[in-house]
Amino acid sequence: MKKYSFKNDYSSLAHYEVLSALSEAVKTQHEGYSEDIHSQNAAALIKCRVNQSNVDVHFVSGGTIANLIVFSAILRPHEAVIACDSGHISTHEAGAIEGTGHKICTVSSVDGKLTAAQIESVVLAHTDEHMVKPKAVFISQSTELGTVYTKSELCDIYASCRANDLYLYIDGARIAAAINSRVCDMTYSDIAESVDVFYLGGTKNGALLGEAIVICNDDLKKEFRHIIKQRGGMLAKGATIGVQFEALFKNNLYDDLAKHSNAMAYRLAEGIKELGYEFLVEVESNQIFPIFPSKVVEKLMQNYDFHEWVKLSDKTAIRLVTSFDTHKSVIDEFLDELSCYS
Amino acid sequence: MKKYSFKNDYSSLAHYEVLSALSEAVKTQHEGYSEDIHSQNAAALIKCRVNQSNVDVHFVSGGTIANLIVFSAILRPHEAVIACDSGHISTHEAGAIEGTGHKICTVSSVDGKLTAAQIESVVLAHTDEHMVKPKAVFISQSTELGTVYTKSELCDIYASCRANDLYLYIDGARIAAAINSRVCDMTYSDIAESVDVFYLGGTKNGALLGEAIVICNDDLKKEFRHIIKQRGGMLAKGATIGVQFEALFKNNLYDDLAKHSNAMAYRLAEGIKELGYEFLVEVESNQIFPIFPSKVVEKLMQNYDFHEWVKLSDKTAIRLVTSFDTHKSVIDEFLDELSCYS
Amino acid sequence: MKKYSFKNDYSSLAHYEVLSALSEAVKTQHEGYSEDIHSQNAAALIKCRVNQSNVDVHFVSGGTIANLIVFSAILRPHEAVIACDSGHISTHEAGAIEGTGHKICTVSSVDGKLTAAQIESVVLAHTDEHMVKPKAVFISQSTELGTVYTKSELCDIYASCRANDLYLYIDGARIAAAINSRVCDMTYSDIAESVDVFYLGGTKNGALLGEAIVICNDDLKKEFRHIIKQRGGMLAKGATIGVQFEALFKNNLYDDLAKHSNAMAYRLAEGIKELGYEFLVEVESNQIFPIFPSKVVEKLMQNYDFHEWVKLSDKTAIRLVTSFDTHKSVIDEFLDELSCYS
Amino acid sequence: MKKYSFKNDYSSLAHYEVLSALSEAVKTQHEGYSEDIHSQNAAALIKCRVNQSNVDVHFVSGGTIANLIVFSAILRPHEAVIACDSGHISTHEAGAIEGTGHKICTVSSVDGKLTAAQIESVVLAHTDEHMVKPKAVFISQSTELGTVYTKSELCDIYASCRANDLYLYIDGARIAAAINSRVCDMTYSDIAESVDVFYLGGTKNGALLGEAIVICNDDLKKEFRHIIKQRGGMLAKGATIGVQFEALFKNNLYDDLAKHSNAMAYRLAEGIKELGYEFLVEVESNQIFPIFPSKVVEKLMQNYDFHEWVKLSDKTAIRLVTSFDTHKSVIDEFLDELSCYS
Repeated sequence: MKKYSFKNDYSSLAHYEVLSALSEAVKTQHEGYSEDIHSQNAAALIKCRVNQSNVDVHFVSGGTIANLIVFSAILRPHEAVIACDSGHISTHEAGAIEGTGHKICTVSSVDGKLTAAQIESVVLAHTDEHMVKPKAVFISQSTELGTVYTKSELCDIYASCRANDLYLYIDGARIAAAINSRVCDMTYSDIAESVDVFYLGGTKNGALLGEAIVICNDDLKKEFRHIIKQRGGMLAKGATIGVQFEALFKNNLYDDLAKHSNAMAYRLAEGIKELGYEFLVEVESNQIFPIFPSKVVEKLMQNYDFHEWVKLSDKTAIRLVTSFDTHKSVIDEFLDELSCYS
Repeated sequence: MKKYSFKNDYSSLAHYEVLSALSEAVKTQHEGYSEDIHSQNAAALIKCRVNQSNVDVHFVSGGTIANLIVFSAILRPHEAVIACDSGHISTHEAGAIEGTGHKICTVSSVDGKLTAAQIESVVLAHTDEHMVKPKAVFISQSTELGTVYTKSELCDIYASCRANDLYLYIDGARIAAAINSRVCDMTYSDIAESVDVFYLGGTKNGALLGEAIVICNDDLKKEFRHIIKQRGGMLAKGATIGVQFEALFKNNLYDDLAKHSNAMAYRLAEGIKELGYEFLVEVESNQIFPIFPSKVVEKLMQNYDFHEWVKLSDKTAIRLVTSFDTHKSVIDEFLDELSCYS
Repeated sequence: MKKYSFKNDYSSLAHYEVLSALSEAVKTQHEGYSEDIHSQNAAALIKCRVNQSNVDVHFVSGGTIANLIVFSAILRPHEAVIACDSGHISTHEAGAIEGTGHKICTVSSVDGKLTAAQIESVVLAHTDEHMVKPKAVFISQSTELGTVYTKSELCDIYASCRANDLYLYIDGARIAAAINSRVCDMTYSDIAESVDVFYLGGTKNGALLGEAIVICNDDLKKEFRHIIKQRGGMLAKGATIGVQFEALFKNNLYDDLAKHSNAMAYRLAEGIKELGYEFLVEVESNQIFPIFPSKVVEKLMQNYDFHEWVKLSDKTAIRLVTSFDTHKSVIDEFLDELSCYS
Repeated sequence: MKKYSFKNDYSSLAHYEVLSALSEAVKTQHEGYSEDIHSQNAAALIKCRVNQSNVDVHFVSGGTIANLIVFSAILRPHEAVIACDSGHISTHEAGAIEGTGHKICTVSSVDGKLTAAQIESVVLAHTDEHMVKPKAVFISQSTELGTVYTKSELCDIYASCRANDLYLYIDGARIAAAINSRVCDMTYSDIAESVDVFYLGGTKNGALLGEAIVICNDDLKKEFRHIIKQRGGMLAKGATIGVQFEALFKNNLYDDLAKHSNAMAYRLAEGIKELGYEFLVEVESNQIFPIFPSKVVEKLMQNYDFHEWVKLSDKTAIRLVTSFDTHKSVIDEFLDELSCYS
């Protein structure tokens, strides 16, 4: 039995306020298929948070199904998605996007970010009907490497998308970690103004499960619920998710959880830096990638769970992820142990 | 505000024992993607309940995604599914099976049941490579009309499947209602012996969400988790479902809930019969289809929610569904009101 | 070795004028992928024949691929096609439409024709997002039973399509046989005015292979060549088809071949009638369905190839198909033989 | 009007012996769907040529549809194909493979060839059920850069495939150019022994259209015709292709045409070399990639058609392709003109 798992931010099942809301909700009957009052309330709160009253909000069970539903809904068969080679849809969704018929055109990225210039290079390389037609761009905010797009970077990407007739989609599995990052210079409202469709992640920020897809572009709203249903993303007990998002958004819980998670990551990173170690990429949110001698990594693995990210000769970069539920004491204990190996 | 909804058996979110198990589970960390202890425990309990130690058990979020994952996993592109025209995959899943590329060959049914003879007639009609090849049979136990296959009927169907090189799949969204039906002459173990793959429904029997796919045929087990992942059915917080199924199966809760649900349906049906009304089909589980004068239906709709099933000249058959959470008093109040209209 | 095959209208590979055009065309180089002069000429001739200058014309290799390309291009994933149960896409294309993800909603038909009323009944039955959304109608002209839609029937269907936001598609594998039918009261131009997209069949009317898809509705034209390419329908040597359609349409060859084919069917039908036999459906084009005592059918099968269509107690309806290449003498010889069995 | 097109090897529609065979074949009736005598003869000749009597041979209309049919037939939904980034399925088939649901995992290649080491690196990188599972390898022989795998290279690849449970598929659009290359050390028989499935290209070697898929691995043969039909690859007039392959294989025509095509490419390359120019890759078959000053390229484009392949500062590599129909005089005239610009 290990002391703690830094493998991911979904090891702890749910924040108690979320569970408490569910405990209250079981006392009454609810309309099915996300047409209940709580889902409606949650949608209203999200519209308020992103400061746009006319977006459509849909609740689904997880990130992979959110991604495949969106691309299935907005793309014709020959249309493709542009993404980083580190993008979640490209690496860790078992071919979910291709499974709905669409190619992903990848470009390489060191820090997990895509650039406007890369988007344009992909568009320029697809010139005729013998090739797929790039029609959407996928980015993650925060990225799979914990980095956070700045407002300026996002605006450049969105401008490139509009110039090239591309839809911009943001995988917001960890969007709360991004918005509440110490390097972030934008709000949820800024996001909603610079994107065609995105989702607000619940699973990785305190909910038992659930993501909220937000459609900003009117052209993409039509019969979206048909697609959710067809792909198996519509829960009969939709209120199960609606109740949780209502709890997360009716006050600042959604952001507070992310702030805590980030704070724990920063504390962890500071301690590691003080012990003289470097990082694979900048520490900007709740995923950090310190580089340790491989022997140190071996020792750490005896008491802690985490992913080895990449081998670098005799060193190894590992991924440490904090969550809404990570306690200061866990961080300090880890650092104590690390200091013994240094 | 209506008094009660008989629209379905998923209006009440969860049984308190299920929720209580979740409340306990949030205190610790869990392995992701259904590889946690609770999911393993739940799988072990299910193996025990079906009396087969070597089946594979997988947890997914809902019925439609369970169905599309199974057929996506076990069929080649030209292979088709045989089902009743009233089968859920044929009518109410927005083309989920076709969405993964497979045709459904339907036959008409009055009571929601498929027969071995019908299966054979479909097989005989598909003779060459210009047609799809029937390769799987889909039945629901209990059916969409609340009826329950007898052991003999199921054995005939399975024998026909084996004779014709077809996989038999049971949609068990309401399998607990079937097994605990007053007309049922079989056990979970009998089911597992007469089927290639099926699922045990949680959503419609007391869980917040979740279904347990049980694969009995070894040939269908390979890399099933890849398919679950690809179709978006694998929850990061898989323990959310595992914990609930553990609670449902560690004692008799799963069956007790269904027994209660059925008992409420029988009580309701008896009362309706006593008032002189007839039914569209036999009352065998928690979905009943009484036939009322359309004027009576209009009056009932003022205080109750339910589905109008089919218009029959000046009468209407409606669907009334009871659940684990339906109280005797609700039934009696409904019957009182009905007696006033009679 | 049998005397003759009435199994279909594609047993004879090509009319000599078509082959002669190919023999001429091999002398020079041609642009690839249907961008050659001959394909352009053929498209221009077809635009002229349908009396519409702004339709798009695309050449593909066969009927099944024409059908799947069109529905793949014009439908979103949850959208379905309405068709007769005797429709080719429903019975004899091995699930090609479902293979691209779309359900076919079938209605039963005795004479192979769909009616406006049937279309509306399907639309009315699909009321919400738990069901597929009917978005296109498939009819064959002439039908799989050799019958021919009248102008009035087609107009009613198209009006129903426009009223219900449905695209109308005509499978014109045998459209020349329909237009040149003795019961036909419309022209190619009438067709083009009452349809969103259709194809003019080459394979079953004198070409080695090839069909010409004609897109009348501007909304359906965008990036159609991408879809043709993606589905494998774009021939590198597109001129192979263009040359043939140029030969078929540069004078009246396309219609002359169908007239001959129909005339042979009528001659055959008259002879059969004179011998006292009845038909399953009216004789309207080059597919006829006489009903013979099963013993007579057995004898005929010794010298002739044809399909047995349906058993009717001790009789059998068979399908006899004539082609551009069927000689009068073959008909007369068949009738002579039949008279011996009567 | 330009003097000649070196854009590809499918500008000339067909060799006269092929057309002559078709002219003969139109005189009689043929069984449909490739079940005619000529298709059977052609299949028998191919089995003889590859020296394996128990392979299955199927005729389809083109390369893209051959590729998508094969992968659609042999892969489960989560299974992926490994290919070079220059592979035809990856670049120039408009997402045909993804369109049937499968990801292509690409590796970079300078000379168009894939190596056993690259295959293994892809396999090693796909470790769990969150990723696609590599299950097939795609290579082109000759490659998209005109290079030719040696017997040793192919054996290494096939050994790697067997070791890693991968099917090996060869796109043989230009397999005759490869086998008859001056650097080739293998026979058709060697190919058939080192592959699970491949196709012999007709379109790019003298046929009007058509490719012959050869299935060597028994496990991949089942119900293949269903898949051909479902994907729209089965021609009603299958004899159209069968007759042509019979003509190509009943003597040495298939190889003779490729030998001529290669010889013209070598003559062209020799002349270019003598004028002092270099090549992007070795000249091994009928596609050559000389590097000229961009100004020379501009001049050449006035009289000749060809593809500009890649810009290299002030130079441009172009692709020149010769065919069965390219005359010596055309080569010499081109070289004369080039010498004027040098």
